[in-house]
Amino acid sequence: MSFNTFGQLFRVTTFGESHGPAIGGVVDGCPPGIRFRLEDIQAALDRRRPGQSRFTTQRREPDQVKVLSGTIEDEDGVLTTTGTPVALLIENVDQRSKDYAAISESYRPGHADYVYDRKYGLRDHRGGGRSSARETAVRVAAGALASRVLAGVTVRGALVQMGEIFIDRSRWDWDEIDRNPFFCPDADAAQAMAEYLDAIRKSGSSVGAVIEIVAEGVPPGLGAPVYGKLDADLAAAFMSINAVKGVEIGEGFASAGLTGEANADEMRMGNDGSPLFLSNHAGGVLGGISTGQPVVARFAVKPTSSILTPRQTVTRHGENAEIVTKGRHDPCVGIRAVPVGEAMMACVLADHVLRARAQVSPPPAWPFPR
Amino acid sequence: MSFNTFGQLFRVTTFGESHGPAIGGVVDGCPPGIRFRLEDIQAALDRRRPGQSRFTTQRREPDQVKVLSGTIEDEDGVLTTTGTPVALLIENVDQRSKDYAAISESYRPGHADYVYDRKYGLRDHRGGGRSSARETAVRVAAGALASRVLAGVTVRGALVQMGEIFIDRSRWDWDEIDRNPFFCPDADAAQAMAEYLDAIRKSGSSVGAVIEIVAEGVPPGLGAPVYGKLDADLAAAFMSINAVKGVEIGEGFASAGLTGEANADEMRMGNDGSPLFLSNHAGGVLGGISTGQPVVARFAVKPTSSILTPRQTVTRHGENAEIVTKGRHDPCVGIRAVPVGEAMMACVLADHVLRARAQVSPPPAWPFPR
Amino acid sequence: MSFNTFGQLFRVTTFGESHGPAIGGVVDGCPPGIRFRLEDIQAALDRRRPGQSRFTTQRREPDQVKVLSGTIEDEDGVLTTTGTPVALLIENVDQRSKDYAAISESYRPGHADYVYDRKYGLRDHRGGGRSSARETAVRVAAGALASRVLAGVTVRGALVQMGEIFIDRSRWDWDEIDRNPFFCPDADAAQAMAEYLDAIRKSGSSVGAVIEIVAEGVPPGLGAPVYGKLDADLAAAFMSINAVKGVEIGEGFASAGLTGEANADEMRMGNDGSPLFLSNHAGGVLGGISTGQPVVARFAVKPTSSILTPRQTVTRHGENAEIVTKGRHDPCVGIRAVPVGEAMMACVLADHVLRARAQVSPPPAWPFPR
Amino acid sequence: MSFNTFGQLFRVTTFGESHGPAIGGVVDGCPPGIRFRLEDIQAALDRRRPGQSRFTTQRREPDQVKVLSGTIEDEDGVLTTTGTPVALLIENVDQRSKDYAAISESYRPGHADYVYDRKYGLRDHRGGGRSSARETAVRVAAGALASRVLAGVTVRGALVQMGEIFIDRSRWDWDEIDRNPFFCPDADAAQAMAEYLDAIRKSGSSVGAVIEIVAEGVPPGLGAPVYGKLDADLAAAFMSINAVKGVEIGEGFASAGLTGEANADEMRMGNDGSPLFLSNHAGGVLGGISTGQPVVARFAVKPTSSILTPRQTVTRHGENAEIVTKGRHDPCVGIRAVPVGEAMMACVLADHVLRARAQVSPPPAWPFPR
Repeated sequence: MSFNTFGQLFRVTTFGESHGPAIGGVVDGCPPGIRFRLEDIQAALDRRRPGQSRFTTQRREPDQVKVLSGTIEDEDGVLTTTGTPVALLIENVDQRSKDYAAISESYRPGHADYVYDRKYGLRDHRGGGRSSARETAVRVAAGALASRVLAGVTVRGALVQMGEIFIDRSRWDWDEIDRNPFFCPDADAAQAMAEYLDAIRKSGSSVGAVIEIVAEGVPPGLGAPVYGKLDADLAAAFMSINAVKGVEIGEGFASAGLTGEANADEMRMGNDGSPLFLSNHAGGVLGGISTGQPVVARFAVKPTSSILTPRQTVTRHGENAEIVTKGRHDPCVGIRAVPVGEAMMACVLADHVLRARAQVSPPPAWPFPR
Repeated sequence: MSFNTFGQLFRVTTFGESHGPAIGGVVDGCPPGIRFRLEDIQAALDRRRPGQSRFTTQRREPDQVKVLSGTIEDEDGVLTTTGTPVALLIENVDQRSKDYAAISESYRPGHADYVYDRKYGLRDHRGGGRSSARETAVRVAAGALASRVLAGVTVRGALVQMGEIFIDRSRWDWDEIDRNPFFCPDADAAQAMAEYLDAIRKSGSSVGAVIEIVAEGVPPGLGAPVYGKLDADLAAAFMSINAVKGVEIGEGFASAGLTGEANADEMRMGNDGSPLFLSNHAGGVLGGISTGQPVVARFAVKPTSSILTPRQTVTRHGENAEIVTKGRHDPCVGIRAVPVGEAMMACVLADHVLRARAQVSPPPAWPFPR
Repeated sequence: MSFNTFGQLFRVTTFGESHGPAIGGVVDGCPPGIRFRLEDIQAALDRRRPGQSRFTTQRREPDQVKVLSGTIEDEDGVLTTTGTPVALLIENVDQRSKDYAAISESYRPGHADYVYDRKYGLRDHRGGGRSSARETAVRVAAGALASRVLAGVTVRGALVQMGEIFIDRSRWDWDEIDRNPFFCPDADAAQAMAEYLDAIRKSGSSVGAVIEIVAEGVPPGLGAPVYGKLDADLAAAFMSINAVKGVEIGEGFASAGLTGEANADEMRMGNDGSPLFLSNHAGGVLGGISTGQPVVARFAVKPTSSILTPRQTVTRHGENAEIVTKGRHDPCVGIRAVPVGEAMMACVLADHVLRARAQVSPPPAWPFPR
Repeated sequence: MSFNTFGQLFRVTTFGESHGPAIGGVVDGCPPGIRFRLEDIQAALDRRRPGQSRFTTQRREPDQVKVLSGTIEDEDGVLTTTGTPVALLIENVDQRSKDYAAISESYRPGHADYVYDRKYGLRDHRGGGRSSARETAVRVAAGALASRVLAGVTVRGALVQMGEIFIDRSRWDWDEIDRNPFFCPDADAAQAMAEYLDAIRKSGSSVGAVIEIVAEGVPPGLGAPVYGKLDADLAAAFMSINAVKGVEIGEGFASAGLTGEANADEMRMGNDGSPLFLSNHAGGVLGGISTGQPVVARFAVKPTSSILTPRQTVTRHGENAEIVTKGRHDPCVGIRAVPVGEAMMACVLADHVLRARAQVSPPPAWPFPR
């Protein structure tokens, strides 16, 4: 069962609520001998951290991560995994539970309030409890560890659509990503997004987004034919991120409009004697298994449900009501979903690398043949 | 690990290759006391069966299912599940392995041939082996059983796009589904699809499609907040179907272009004293948990990769080659994906119903309190 | 969930009842490239097959196994696994359901009849249904496949106690195992067992047994520290065999009576420069991980519950009754548990070999580093 | 995969090393609405806590547990589970890593030192790292939570053998358990154990033990026929406790010496109209499913491997050596294994209660029928 665990061999179990004392997780199955510094994980967390521009929530969380187990540290501060579970802990600092008192009785549209009451018969209304996107900080920390398992693989994400603003793919520049607060690879689009989101934010509204994650250097052969498909695991991984409503691989939904000829990724032998694909409509996955081309996936994030415009709703007690969701919210939660998407891609790939090792043929030197 | 198993509590494990002696599966976790007739499962299989119109593969497979275990039969031919695993067996009848001799050396673009060789170091080239869509017959049989677990839930699917032909949603009529060979809910669009697909088929080409699956009568409270999300499981389920490249729930990718106000599903108290949603942008799932509204999902199927137009490729031995994929193929595999999508929806929902029972609070009369 | 699945990476799912049309199973996760002949599996099944001496049930089952998927066969009849699930099917031939008519209303002491009715609200009373030891034939077939994964490992079992007859360990001779119908490694004890069991059988009674399974050639490093312990998995594996009531590793229960000095397995460097254990009280497992010494486990099998002596019981309808269990039963089910125990040891070890490969450090040549 | 997770629906994942900053765990799947106080968990921990008598290690750990998530607290300090994961944290206080400096190079006989080096290629030598029995504190905390799920079930454990001292079962008195430092139910035996263990302790030696765990009030119907057997899960659970080498249910190994007549648990209708077993040789489990009688299990704990008597060993560098294991150790680790065994019994039963609810027939009021 996987209520709160993600992955099979590189397993991430998370815990914690937005307004409890801490959030955290356990990475189980990380191979021994993986070396990293606490700063590596912290750097990943800092990309996702709230309060870094006027376009994200003003909640101030340092998101300082502690590693409680599973590593030994040398004199230089390098941590080496021992093969035992790596526990990660991030204390919550800037909770303002009183922001939520007003909404404890009414169901916020687009939030999980109503379904929690129906499912569990009770709920922790402070900040959405377990449904808060704060949980994704732990994913980012785990993803940083996963990326250390993926020697030679580069995982990067970009915001490719915000509301009505689309990027121009011909202007794609990965270097641009860190130069604007949107992880946008198109400088002009980033400028347009800034103006657009300022207006959205000031009007108390919110907007959705599409994120693209690309993994380069993935070896062919990750995945499995039927229910262990790499793309099925990616679909679940991205759909498990808060507010995500759609996932696609390669051509995705556009492939429905193509003919077989147009969609075929033809092959030729390359100059180095290796097979070469002439296109990548497949997004790096065929039959559920990686082809060796870049793995390309996109996911859609709905607009933030917490808005200042009054909406109709009902209360726990069955009365009609009107609700305005105050608090400190991201006008576009899709922005901070970029590092989360990268982390999920890294975790899924690390999991599949370990799976592939288990099924490797011929067997490795250990533990067989001897 | 879930290489060939789908689901957690309603678990479906499938086996078999397109051109081996049989395909089949084991449904483990089906509760005792579920009553059905073999004809119920057969009827579901017949909807997916090949060779029923000129628009699907002419392979003639009766797809006769046998139930090998897990049930007791009464005098009237009603089978009752006993709580032990239900094994399903479908013998392959109309294999023509020689169709595949020509392609044993060359990699078919869009197929898993190349990645199998890279992953396993060998492959069963007959009919795609494990990657053949024949495996989905077992899913349909399992889905028929799942639907018996879902008392009061109706799961239906429809083809909403074929290549460049889109349905007109204002003309949606579920009764139309069984009146055309496309599971299309719009009679006019179905007529257009027939002409369109005839041309595609005659030219030796193929085309993609989008399928929508709707589950009505789903109780609120199925799913779980983080990695046990109902929609994450649906995303994996649909993405695990052959040739699927995208999945969305409710507004899906369109939600990226909406504002928070437009996307909010407001609520009012209904005349019967129950809360009522005024819209269903969420597609029946909030925070990973069902709301009680219809669960609405769509998935995109790429065009059939087996086409008669010659394509460039390489051989196993590293030579450039050209390939034409003969054999008996569906010009639009999306059509037969409709019953498969229904089956996956039913299996996921049945799984989550069992999960919800495990976590029910207050506890049921058995086993506790006594 | 593992209602009917055993193992994590080498996963065996079984199905089937004693008196249904067939029993079978699916081995998922078997690496590609494993070569075997159908005769290898059949030979293993023949060791467990009923009706081979007067000391086992006279039910006549040929136990002919079919492999339905997951392999390709060459001209010489050698099957090679492809990495996809291997389905195994054994048809039931010699069912005599009428033998069971008398007991459909009364609960047989020591059998699962009563608990099935309490758990499921119904049961398949024919031959014990799912609880029949016939299910173990599938384990033996899967174990034969597992043993092909375990290159260099020898797994053997022996009956070391039958009722009041104990073997003399100083007379242990593995060659003796196949010379008597009890898998007994002590020729004198085997003679005594024959006389003893003849008397038991003629009196309509039954008797228990202890089986020892030894795996030689197991590399050090299989297992994991806490919940992935090799010996914990062996304990579950053996306890899952019908009628088993106890499991021990190495000194087992006797270790409770030892001091730390007596129980310590001291080490010295061997002549070949490898560390050498001077004793094996640990039974080849320390801290849940294999030491490289033989893995030694024992399990106790209770006497067959089906006996001709009348016993007091109750009926489904709440009446006191007396019951005599006719039918064709083993007077000592422990005998045929020997090949089953070997199979379980092989399956657990194969599973842990695959697990170890997943966590191997440094990583193998594929998939990484490249 | 279950490297560090135990259970299927009531899932316990633990982390932490003996000499790291903290140990802890995550309980996932605990139903919502379970009420408890922090003191309940603390009281359970205190029973296992080191340093409470001269017969256990003198390491002083307060074992103060924190609940980081998954509950809401009312004004009276009552915590109610919300259905989200419950994280437990226990900080390590009294580490003395220098005690272990001497043994970083040599392998302690009976410990996991050697196999860790062989498996992982490196190890955390401080206090046995992950293999330390400190991990069991988290099990005890989780078990206290499990026991709140088990309304009406009483789980108790007792030490029934210490080295050469056996209890007299006719003198069994549960009230005696808390009156001596051994959890011994026989006052006379406890007196003998005190003298016996004083001598063992003073001589720098150690001794093994047998623990019996009894669960009363277990409803019939927990477990499943084949690989989901209640007793198979108990066997794995107990064998996963440090230093355990054997597990038995009911008559256990003694059943091998019995006839079918002697071992049969006959039934009669009781005065209240319910079926009644006249004996409990089965230990409360038939065919892997609970009968409603007390579940009775025993496990054997080997003598503590850390002793003051010098033993022969080898170093990491392949040299012969002699070793004396100093530090603060329990002369009989079996004593503190009593509350750990109780916890494992409670966790396994809670897991099976949730499993049974998932398969309940007819279905409960929610989520079906409606």
